[in-house]
Amino acid sequence: MSQAPPLASQLDELKQRLRRFAAERDWERFHSPKNLAMALAAESGELAEHFRWQADAAVLPADALPPIEQELADVLIYLVRLADRLDVDLLGAVEHKMAIDLTRHPPQQT
Amino acid sequence: MSQAPPLASQLDELKQRLRRFAAERDWERFHSPKNLAMALAAESGELAEHFRWQADAAVLPADALPPIEQELADVLIYLVRLADRLDVDLLGAVEHKMAIDLTRHPPQQT
Amino acid sequence: MSQAPPLASQLDELKQRLRRFAAERDWERFHSPKNLAMALAAESGELAEHFRWQADAAVLPADALPPIEQELADVLIYLVRLADRLDVDLLGAVEHKMAIDLTRHPPQQT
Amino acid sequence: MSQAPPLASQLDELKQRLRRFAAERDWERFHSPKNLAMALAAESGELAEHFRWQADAAVLPADALPPIEQELADVLIYLVRLADRLDVDLLGAVEHKMAIDLTRHPPQQT
Repeated sequence: MSQAPPLASQLDELKQRLRRFAAERDWERFHSPKNLAMALAAESGELAEHFRWQADAAVLPADALPPIEQELADVLIYLVRLADRLDVDLLGAVEHKMAIDLTRHPPQQT
Repeated sequence: MSQAPPLASQLDELKQRLRRFAAERDWERFHSPKNLAMALAAESGELAEHFRWQADAAVLPADALPPIEQELADVLIYLVRLADRLDVDLLGAVEHKMAIDLTRHPPQQT
Repeated sequence: MSQAPPLASQLDELKQRLRRFAAERDWERFHSPKNLAMALAAESGELAEHFRWQADAAVLPADALPPIEQELADVLIYLVRLADRLDVDLLGAVEHKMAIDLTRHPPQQT
Repeated sequence: MSQAPPLASQLDELKQRLRRFAAERDWERFHSPKNLAMALAAESGELAEHFRWQADAAVLPADALPPIEQELADVLIYLVRLADRLDVDLLGAVEHKMAIDLTRHPPQQT
């Protein structure tokens, strides 16, 4: 009986696809860690722009969401590319950071 | 014979864990989309700080990587939280954005 | 013989003009320190966007400059507004910071 | 009788001082427009960090202000350096941008 495929990693797969996408366009030369970090900061700034005048509890109007979704996607795209170029395991880094956060911020006692 | 577990989504699982982490600390009230977008911009700025004076082709010194890994983790953490609060499917948004990018930037002809 | 006018402060004058500009549009309610800090991060991100793929020593093409000038202006506008709302003397803060930088980074010996 | 000195430009004077400060430390080679734009984004991100969890109308606690003043100073320092390296007249750019903003956002009618 056939085995289920090994648990595919969404982020690894995305990493591979973005790597191919860059290679096919000869973009590797632009995708230095420095440039990707700058692109990530730029996209995060654009994302922030959508929220700057909003009241904190405001519900977004429906037509505001599509451009925000594109910015969210760009942030993830550049983040995955940057981690790839630095040879960083993104989910491993999150595990490590969450362990630190757990120590710094124990759950509230009741 | 036991079935393989359904393909678990890494990002969905991370989303659930971060949701619990916030709830256990009563942080939901801080995690408005606006505040999370601001936190994401802040972490991206900190990440950029590590690269600002670097020559573009420079290889990072070994001791530079651990703090960068923490910033990368923070960016992903806030990104997943923000998408969760906006009820956005992050990987779906990436698919959509990559389809747009594919149209805008066809692969180079040789 | 008439005295020269007291040394007018460019930044104070700009602060006053921006204050009036906001008041005439009923924007004071949007211009909380938090919102202005977010706007500043957004404009800085847009500014970074112009440089992200550039080689470091690259000379900007002539048509790249006008939009960059607008971003630089926006950064100064939000910075002056933010300092105003926080009641911070911007040039005094710079003096203080430069004194710190002078201690941290003494001039190089030759 | 001695003339009053010509109206000195605060920002020009700051530009000159920062230029000397960089030259005395042999920092000119780091201060490319690209690197300075990245530094500006980094400092704006750090500034945003101070406000991210704040309620919008919150009054800052007194001890929160000094580090914010330093970030504000850093933003102005890098902004003035960047404008200098791009040979942009910062106040001229603000005049131009405010004229555009005036057209886009006429004062509210009463």
